[in-house]
Amino acid sequence: MSNASPMDVAWMRRAVELAAKGVGSTHPNPVVGCVITGPDGHPVGEGFHAVAGGPHAEVEALRMAGARARGGTAYVTLEPCNHTGRTGPCADALIEAGIARVVYAVPDPNRTAAGGADKLASKSIEVVEGVLRDEAEAVNQVWLHSVRTGRPFVTWKFATTLDGRSAAPDRTSKWITGPIARADVHRHRAECDAIAVGTQTVLDDDPELTVRDETDVPAARQPLRVVVGDREIPPTARVRNDRAATLLLPTHDPAEVLRQLDDRQIRHLWLEGGPTLAAAFVRAGLVDEIIAYVAPAVLGSGFAAVGDLGAESIDHLRRFKLADVSRLGDDVRLTLVPLGGK
Amino acid sequence: MSNASPMDVAWMRRAVELAAKGVGSTHPNPVVGCVITGPDGHPVGEGFHAVAGGPHAEVEALRMAGARARGGTAYVTLEPCNHTGRTGPCADALIEAGIARVVYAVPDPNRTAAGGADKLASKSIEVVEGVLRDEAEAVNQVWLHSVRTGRPFVTWKFATTLDGRSAAPDRTSKWITGPIARADVHRHRAECDAIAVGTQTVLDDDPELTVRDETDVPAARQPLRVVVGDREIPPTARVRNDRAATLLLPTHDPAEVLRQLDDRQIRHLWLEGGPTLAAAFVRAGLVDEIIAYVAPAVLGSGFAAVGDLGAESIDHLRRFKLADVSRLGDDVRLTLVPLGGK
Repeated sequence: MSNASPMDVAWMRRAVELAAKGVGSTHPNPVVGCVITGPDGHPVGEGFHAVAGGPHAEVEALRMAGARARGGTAYVTLEPCNHTGRTGPCADALIEAGIARVVYAVPDPNRTAAGGADKLASKSIEVVEGVLRDEAEAVNQVWLHSVRTGRPFVTWKFATTLDGRSAAPDRTSKWITGPIARADVHRHRAECDAIAVGTQTVLDDDPELTVRDETDVPAARQPLRVVVGDREIPPTARVRNDRAATLLLPTHDPAEVLRQLDDRQIRHLWLEGGPTLAAAFVRAGLVDEIIAYVAPAVLGSGFAAVGDLGAESIDHLRRFKLADVSRLGDDVRLTLVPLGGK
Repeated sequence: MSNASPMDVAWMRRAVELAAKGVGSTHPNPVVGCVITGPDGHPVGEGFHAVAGGPHAEVEALRMAGARARGGTAYVTLEPCNHTGRTGPCADALIEAGIARVVYAVPDPNRTAAGGADKLASKSIEVVEGVLRDEAEAVNQVWLHSVRTGRPFVTWKFATTLDGRSAAPDRTSKWITGPIARADVHRHRAECDAIAVGTQTVLDDDPELTVRDETDVPAARQPLRVVVGDREIPPTARVRNDRAATLLLPTHDPAEVLRQLDDRQIRHLWLEGGPTLAAAFVRAGLVDEIIAYVAPAVLGSGFAAVGDLGAESIDHLRRFKLADVSRLGDDVRLTLVPLGGK
């Protein structure tokens, strides 16, 4: 990014803001934001990728800019694609519009879509890579992880008392946390494209596993519901209702679960437990983020959020990095990521 | 506090600041701060109660003010005492110094020391009560609780993993939390006048239960070490060493523990567990504050911080109020108080 000016950084910051507007609705595509400035450096267009199948950010921004884009600069959070999918290659659209310079943050790791920067450069367009790369990586974290590793990004969510109980001895667990924490869960669920639980959780709690607003109205777009395990699910289980699609995966292998979901282009899996399924993912090292809601309460007995991990001594403690701690009403939300992660 | 002016509030705020300097070193006495202004309203003296047996705050402030106190105002966080203990009554000292007006925050709930305000008023000194009462109550919370209820204020402290494990299956627990959290424990311990554990914890961990600084050097003043339960403690146990006094209480009744400690004028008990002792205190409703250190780690097996509380269903959850949440290095500290408490 040797050719980046302070104005380049400022416009890329705006492009990252735009990209963030697509979080949760572009699956299986990345979020992308774009700002176009005219030859005089003033902004003439902006756009973001809002939904898979809809126009790409660059196309939106070019449409707003019209002829004013000619000789200008395009700021894009992700390398412009060189791929004809449901829309044409963005690299071609930028070339046709007469853009003189393209600044992007993150190179496209997707082999079928990459090559946009080379194509632009071959048309004598000045190309600058890496401006605000960290911020642009963060907003696209889930998609980049999924494309780079070939499996969905896994968030393990649980609610617990301060003494580590996620359910009472009779398996009841409604409600450990308060309404603000529960609304936060629905906001997070809404940004994922699949929600997984084990069969035991379906039998115990009969959860619907849908995204609902504060008045309990289901959202228009619902993540895929995934039930893992080979115990029988009754036909009357709420997870079988028609409010969302449901996938039954009769396996106990987390890697197999993720393979099946990757085949369906699932980018972000929201893992709700119970303890056996959570333990399988933790043991396999397949948890990319932990979001724990801790209630200011003690129970003294019951079930923990995570089952046996084979630990016998404190030396077997599995440590994570504390990425965030937030108060949500009467509860506390802790966000953990793998050590060495961002 | 009808006769209180903005300047009264300002000087009382300073007196509360001064009082706070005594927290942790005045046991079994309250913390008290005092500011004296001369007849022109300018400050001429200030003081605080630093250590039991040492001069009271009013006496310190009068000493600094000298003759300039005559005709002035004394701001005191607690009603001036009318009691001859190791020092004479502060009410008399204020009268002798010719103070014209006394403003105090909290009436003295201690029957043997109260009556100071009446004595001052009987000498035609203007007396104003209740200025900044909430702040002054807060800084003296432990002592006021102890005098009002006739038992020590109980803080239950524990360290836990995010999945609620305070020890591994082999009972090892060193170290769940990091050095910043452990230093915070020592700071809190230093402000208490007794530390209690159960006999099982002594047998498992052989803790020394002393206050040490970051280089592991013991503090000059050490809380009383209290071991609760009737299991035999080996003569070589570190809790029996000569670095602090130790009290063995062969009982399982928390109320009896607190009676014994109240007889010894213990104001603030720091309860470190283990789970059986903690559960006994929680069941008895004798926990006034919970300080939990939560590590960003999971263990999947082992012992919870608190033993069985008789809960069978989630309806039996014992809720507290979240008073504070703070990040301490890689760990999180949650402070809980009883519902309905401050």
